[in-house]
Amino acid sequence: MSVFSWPARVYWEDTDGGGVVYYANYLRFLERARTEWLRSLGYSQWVLAREPGIVFAVASLTVEYRRPARLDDELTITCQARADRAATIRFEQKIFRGHSPEDGPPILTAAVRVACVDAHTLKPRRLPESLMNVLISS
Amino acid sequence: MSVFSWPARVYWEDTDGGGVVYYANYLRFLERARTEWLRSLGYSQWVLAREPGIVFAVASLTVEYRRPARLDDELTITCQARADRAATIRFEQKIFRGHSPEDGPPILTAAVRVACVDAHTLKPRRLPESLMNVLISS
Amino acid sequence: MSVFSWPARVYWEDTDGGGVVYYANYLRFLERARTEWLRSLGYSQWVLAREPGIVFAVASLTVEYRRPARLDDELTITCQARADRAATIRFEQKIFRGHSPEDGPPILTAAVRVACVDAHTLKPRRLPESLMNVLISS
Amino acid sequence: MSVFSWPARVYWEDTDGGGVVYYANYLRFLERARTEWLRSLGYSQWVLAREPGIVFAVASLTVEYRRPARLDDELTITCQARADRAATIRFEQKIFRGHSPEDGPPILTAAVRVACVDAHTLKPRRLPESLMNVLISS
Repeated sequence: MSVFSWPARVYWEDTDGGGVVYYANYLRFLERARTEWLRSLGYSQWVLAREPGIVFAVASLTVEYRRPARLDDELTITCQARADRAATIRFEQKIFRGHSPEDGPPILTAAVRVACVDAHTLKPRRLPESLMNVLISS
Repeated sequence: MSVFSWPARVYWEDTDGGGVVYYANYLRFLERARTEWLRSLGYSQWVLAREPGIVFAVASLTVEYRRPARLDDELTITCQARADRAATIRFEQKIFRGHSPEDGPPILTAAVRVACVDAHTLKPRRLPESLMNVLISS
Repeated sequence: MSVFSWPARVYWEDTDGGGVVYYANYLRFLERARTEWLRSLGYSQWVLAREPGIVFAVASLTVEYRRPARLDDELTITCQARADRAATIRFEQKIFRGHSPEDGPPILTAAVRVACVDAHTLKPRRLPESLMNVLISS
Repeated sequence: MSVFSWPARVYWEDTDGGGVVYYANYLRFLERARTEWLRSLGYSQWVLAREPGIVFAVASLTVEYRRPARLDDELTITCQARADRAATIRFEQKIFRGHSPEDGPPILTAAVRVACVDAHTLKPRRLPESLMNVLISS
């Protein structure tokens, strides 16, 4: 199972009055990495939402905040995905400070379960076959 | 033209690493007041978006930031609306620290022009007749 | 252990292009309830940050997203706190649609572990004695 | 006066229930470009905040929203800066869809006046001499 990684920079918008990244805003970084992982496989969520009419909704998550990130920090966000039944993807994600996961221990680790749902009814839908194949073979 | 006012509290989510409210987040407070003004007139934006299928889109704004707001501050946001042609509302808005506009000078003043647009095409649509009547008579 | 509850309204700022509340933004609602629970006990985080110089940092969290919230929804966020060693508080939190936890099942459940840390060094600090006493006796 | 430009991608976090970027969130894109412009000149805001102890605070802004940006859009944000007295920078900023300002008309134009203030007192401070020189000679 390969690891996808994506960079992000911490801007003022991400910080809070404590001088570090606001705890909810790390979830934005996590989502950017998941979105770019999908894009790297050829999937645009904007396109998927119209045809075949599916969106991905977070069903549950667990986050361990280990060290804070600060203004101007360069972060690397990783994501590893595996299929979890027909309509769910499980992501293991980490955030590192610096340009590479090798620069030190993660400042945050997360497990995120994402459900594939109908864009209109929000009811579960099977993952696209081609995406499922990627997940199984990776 | 009567002045509508709405309270807000500053939470961690609103602040940035400078210890004050992040400049973009005041616009969230301004929008809450406009939304509650509409609601006070009986209009739910959620309902309007489906029937008659209109949403309000900010077309332009001017903001003067006079003093910063901080964590835990209680704010009062005011809004005065007037129709501006058939498809636009102009709002004069202010933010005060404390429970009342009488507590001191505004910490922020803004002029916001909001267009009534089709929820799907985003093209201009006339304001609902009943809303227009409220705006003209107020 | 009594349950504290706090209301919130869903505004445009909270939603995303899927038409529902963005998954990270529920964490803002959760924090507002924790902050107001502290305030109900007489603690201002703004004051605590200066004297005795402590802030609360989320150390870990688990969230189950059960149903989406939408624009204009009125939510009730609950929080139950208990001390967890000398420097940590554990919160059990739920979000309900409507004015009361009795209106139906929660749309979201969360467990949030919050560490008391030094405002400058971000190193663990003991909870204020008076707060500890409240947590133990509740 | 040269034009600095910086790319951004629209993610779910940036959109709202109307399917387009939430009006306040364009201001985050604008700030990223200003921050990266400063960085391109060798200034880290994190460093400046500690020594000489200055931060930049938006004093006023005007924004024209011309066309909406949508999920997955790639944006180019430009910024042109000029000194405005000893303690203020004026920025002319534009946001374009696509990789280059030549790809079409801007979807948003803005004028942003930013004050240099003391990181602690928030009172006006002179711009660093070296930055002033860059602004005058550019």
